[in-house]
Amino acid sequence: MHTLLILSSEQKTYRSIIGSANLPDLKIISEPSDECDILLGDPSLIRDALASLPNLKWVQSIWAGVEPLMDSALKRDYILTNARGVFGQLMSEYVLTYLLSHERKVLHLHGLQRKKEWDDSNNGTLRGRTIGLLGVGSIGAEVARMAKFFGMTVRGYTHSREESADVDEYFHGDLLMEFASGLDYLINILPSTKATHGIINAGLLNALPDHALFINVGRGSAVDESALVEALTHNKIAGAVLDVFQQEPLPKDHPFWETPNLAITFHTAAPSLPEDIAGIFIENYKLYIEGKPLKHQVDFEKGY
Amino acid sequence: MHTLLILSSEQKTYRSIIGSANLPDLKIISEPSDECDILLGDPSLIRDALASLPNLKWVQSIWAGVEPLMDSALKRDYILTNARGVFGQLMSEYVLTYLLSHERKVLHLHGLQRKKEWDDSNNGTLRGRTIGLLGVGSIGAEVARMAKFFGMTVRGYTHSREESADVDEYFHGDLLMEFASGLDYLINILPSTKATHGIINAGLLNALPDHALFINVGRGSAVDESALVEALTHNKIAGAVLDVFQQEPLPKDHPFWETPNLAITFHTAAPSLPEDIAGIFIENYKLYIEGKPLKHQVDFEKGY
Repeated sequence: MHTLLILSSEQKTYRSIIGSANLPDLKIISEPSDECDILLGDPSLIRDALASLPNLKWVQSIWAGVEPLMDSALKRDYILTNARGVFGQLMSEYVLTYLLSHERKVLHLHGLQRKKEWDDSNNGTLRGRTIGLLGVGSIGAEVARMAKFFGMTVRGYTHSREESADVDEYFHGDLLMEFASGLDYLINILPSTKATHGIINAGLLNALPDHALFINVGRGSAVDESALVEALTHNKIAGAVLDVFQQEPLPKDHPFWETPNLAITFHTAAPSLPEDIAGIFIENYKLYIEGKPLKHQVDFEKGY
Repeated sequence: MHTLLILSSEQKTYRSIIGSANLPDLKIISEPSDECDILLGDPSLIRDALASLPNLKWVQSIWAGVEPLMDSALKRDYILTNARGVFGQLMSEYVLTYLLSHERKVLHLHGLQRKKEWDDSNNGTLRGRTIGLLGVGSIGAEVARMAKFFGMTVRGYTHSREESADVDEYFHGDLLMEFASGLDYLINILPSTKATHGIINAGLLNALPDHALFINVGRGSAVDESALVEALTHNKIAGAVLDVFQQEPLPKDHPFWETPNLAITFHTAAPSLPEDIAGIFIENYKLYIEGKPLKHQVDFEKGY
């Protein structure tokens, strides 16, 4: 018999979906207990429960990002798996929403309509643009596929992997400035690790053309926030769109709320939908009871 | 020797592109003359010049829509070709811009940012939505291809043709209400003809679900404008996006400027770019001097 603890604000939904899957030998509980060997939940809630779960064998995160569990002072004697492969389309749609809003000047045209001003000057297109992806994992590969569909040139900056055939040119290591040079769009999709902390700094922002648009759907820690405010305030880049921040919710007194040419959204680019995440859990549970390797395992050393 | 008259506000650009193609036996002129056998230009300018061109053999329109030349009182003893095959991506990008702005609530989130309000409620996605295309010519086929890329179900309503493999279900004739029933998005891409005049009327708008979004990138004549104002004012549909109107520019006193949940743009969804249109002309000119059938011929009876 296995015992699953679910720690999520959407606990009821998860319980209902997983319950109806009739998984063999599985008991579901709602409070930490010694018998619990499996945990499914939000990393922020899991973090606080780890100490009360002495027999924990496997944790399935419902998020892609697992930073709250990477603290070396925390228990690490369990298998950690995260959510992957389900955010690609949502992230692509988010990125595309803001690329197109930028090219098609959605807010500007909305303003013209309010002033009853007919202005038939032309707009931009995605075709022929160059997009740079900071990080090309499963989400980056989906964004790359979307970019190729619209006729863009795709650059990828990664630690090592070169797995997507939709990336036209890969960059690694100290070639970050070469990667950034001439980009129309820069998209950050990197996980939060020591190596990615503050990677979008004044140097990188200065390397971008002044017409470039920056979008962050990775993690807030990747951005030097003061450098970004500075770049936008002095028109060093054309605009930025941020879905993630160093502190969330964004504090009321943060300059981002009123920085020019900056659109912010509320960590909603690609929500973890229970039907998607429960599917990952169910697939992994079947592997777990057969003693097979689980999918989407996180390396505690790398942090993703 | 052939004599080409160019009538367009971008005459200089066209002259330069076509001039550098070094087409054989071609003289380019800027004013109507008896010797002119070929005309390239805006249908609205061509209309007024037809009477002064007794030896006209071929007219290449730089627009897709050729309504100004369809008047039965006008000269019709020439071959008319229009612009096709170059608007597909631009139209797809326009449609996608407003589908995504709608699902991702771009204007709403912009308003929240101005109020410094963090709101992480979820947004919609294109995946699984049903889109209905009124008219599936070359532009409709491109929109259908884009819709399939994002995992939508695609319905097409056409006079007769069923040429796109990206359309899941075709409707014809009196099955217009069945076509509309249950659509998440309705996109009009029909040309302006007697049969399409006022096709988007109260009956069709009532047949749509109340969460539906309507986008018109075809022609303004397809829409019963009062019926649309009525449907939007009473929330019979969720929103509309119009790029074309019965009268353009839209008169200052037109209710569309202030109709709720209506976004208007200024006939800019897919501009005729001289480099694209000149390419069509050059290809057709080579066929013309060889006496071969021209591409994209318009049928004066059908009107497209």
